[in-house]
Amino acid sequence: MTVKVGIAQLSCGPDKAQNIRNFTDRVRQLAASGARIICLQELFASLYFCDEERYQNFQLAESIPDGPTTQHFISLAKELEVVLICSMFEKRTEGIYHNTAAVIDADGTYLGKYRKMHIPDDPGYYEKFYFTPGDLGYKVFHTRYGTVGVLICWDQWFPEASRITALMGAQILFYPTAIGWDVRQNEADNREQYEAWQTIQRSHAVANGVPVVSVNRTGLEGGMQFWGGSFITNAFGRVLYQAPHFDETIHVQELDLAESDHYRRHWPYLRDRRIDSYSPLLKRYLDE
Amino acid sequence: MTVKVGIAQLSCGPDKAQNIRNFTDRVRQLAASGARIICLQELFASLYFCDEERYQNFQLAESIPDGPTTQHFISLAKELEVVLICSMFEKRTEGIYHNTAAVIDADGTYLGKYRKMHIPDDPGYYEKFYFTPGDLGYKVFHTRYGTVGVLICWDQWFPEASRITALMGAQILFYPTAIGWDVRQNEADNREQYEAWQTIQRSHAVANGVPVVSVNRTGLEGGMQFWGGSFITNAFGRVLYQAPHFDETIHVQELDLAESDHYRRHWPYLRDRRIDSYSPLLKRYLDE
Repeated sequence: MTVKVGIAQLSCGPDKAQNIRNFTDRVRQLAASGARIICLQELFASLYFCDEERYQNFQLAESIPDGPTTQHFISLAKELEVVLICSMFEKRTEGIYHNTAAVIDADGTYLGKYRKMHIPDDPGYYEKFYFTPGDLGYKVFHTRYGTVGVLICWDQWFPEASRITALMGAQILFYPTAIGWDVRQNEADNREQYEAWQTIQRSHAVANGVPVVSVNRTGLEGGMQFWGGSFITNAFGRVLYQAPHFDETIHVQELDLAESDHYRRHWPYLRDRRIDSYSPLLKRYLDE
Repeated sequence: MTVKVGIAQLSCGPDKAQNIRNFTDRVRQLAASGARIICLQELFASLYFCDEERYQNFQLAESIPDGPTTQHFISLAKELEVVLICSMFEKRTEGIYHNTAAVIDADGTYLGKYRKMHIPDDPGYYEKFYFTPGDLGYKVFHTRYGTVGVLICWDQWFPEASRITALMGAQILFYPTAIGWDVRQNEADNREQYEAWQTIQRSHAVANGVPVVSVNRTGLEGGMQFWGGSFITNAFGRVLYQAPHFDETIHVQELDLAESDHYRRHWPYLRDRRIDSYSPLLKRYLDE
């Protein structure tokens, strides 16, 4: 009931082919170190292009799974016998693009995709310009090494998303991410934001009794210092590993999936959820 | 837009009248120190009697608001011009008892009650024996000093409860609590549990952009070391104050309620919630 998960926290450059080569190299290293499920950071094939609204950036998008990037990682997964979680810019058709993660099984089988449900839009993160909100709902994927739930970046701030994914049977929650600090911001705000980001994701582990794996990018892109700090928790939100903020790194972490049963017996929230009382969650606000 | 909240983290004894005198003294001290909204710990009038299933303990229950404890604190609130949040064992009628918090306004007006929705039951916390699950749903109370949401102890592990209460307009979330460590447990587990407890409550502040005030008991009762560690966060989950684990303490904390607008503008989760996708939250599990 243990599985080794691998993460790669890198900085990206403007050359898509070079980014893909870098991540390919790191996937090989992670696999050689024993990783069986490997999650790459959000939109790893490019710079975080959503820092501006620029029509030319749509050229970065590809079909999933027919596009070359998915096909490349399908071959790699099969060769290395690892599960891969690959976040990419998806072109679904003319005028419909998504922020999507493809999940590939350890025999190279394409298991399906999760399309980011919650799309941010604030200065430096103009994602509503590029990405149609996901219409596939929440997803779990039954891989050779376990059932994984995948959510993407802004999704991480919504306990609703993690709860539903856990209730679908996810044994691990993965969050490919791209988040950083405005370089003009002060250190106290930086620290508060990083802590809030880690806290809310740790809380998903606590609330649902599953480990959380959050994989962020690092590096400076324009005025944005991506804050790295990727981390992995156990099934009760304890941080087992935390990456540095400013350095590229890869890491393999063994997770004991049997812990979920232990924690959910001792902290039986799923038994006690008051599902008869939760319909107000389907409202925007309860002012009337 | 600022308000001073006061908390009292005490140990309790077997003498109900003495417990009420102790808390009355502390409320007076808190009011004298400027507190305007004061929250007392869960079931402060007694020992944490739910550590065993004992019929005699039902004698501790009172009607709310007609019982003597509520009436006493109504007088005190009026005299001191403070809002009081009082967690008590409620006798509703023969055979129906609740774990209930009464909210009293600063002019002594009884504003209503919240009945604990999520009822735990595990070794040392046999609450399902005593308490009928709340049937009033989630509640906010419009006090002289702000709109407060009240949830109780086990509720704190459920993001659904805090979300709904925040969507109802709560400006501050209060959690009267009684939670502790089995004295036979090791220090690593103790630390993990306390951290999980604080993390999930901090996450309610993060997710909803409101301060959280969690008020726990301290002291040794039988084999249970109540872990104290009451704490108060800002509207982004930053811990502004944390009480010691083993000592009685009172504390007054100024909160800036205008911060909610700031954080909700910069982290606009309420804008982006995918309410069209949340109906699975109304299910127990999604296996079929």
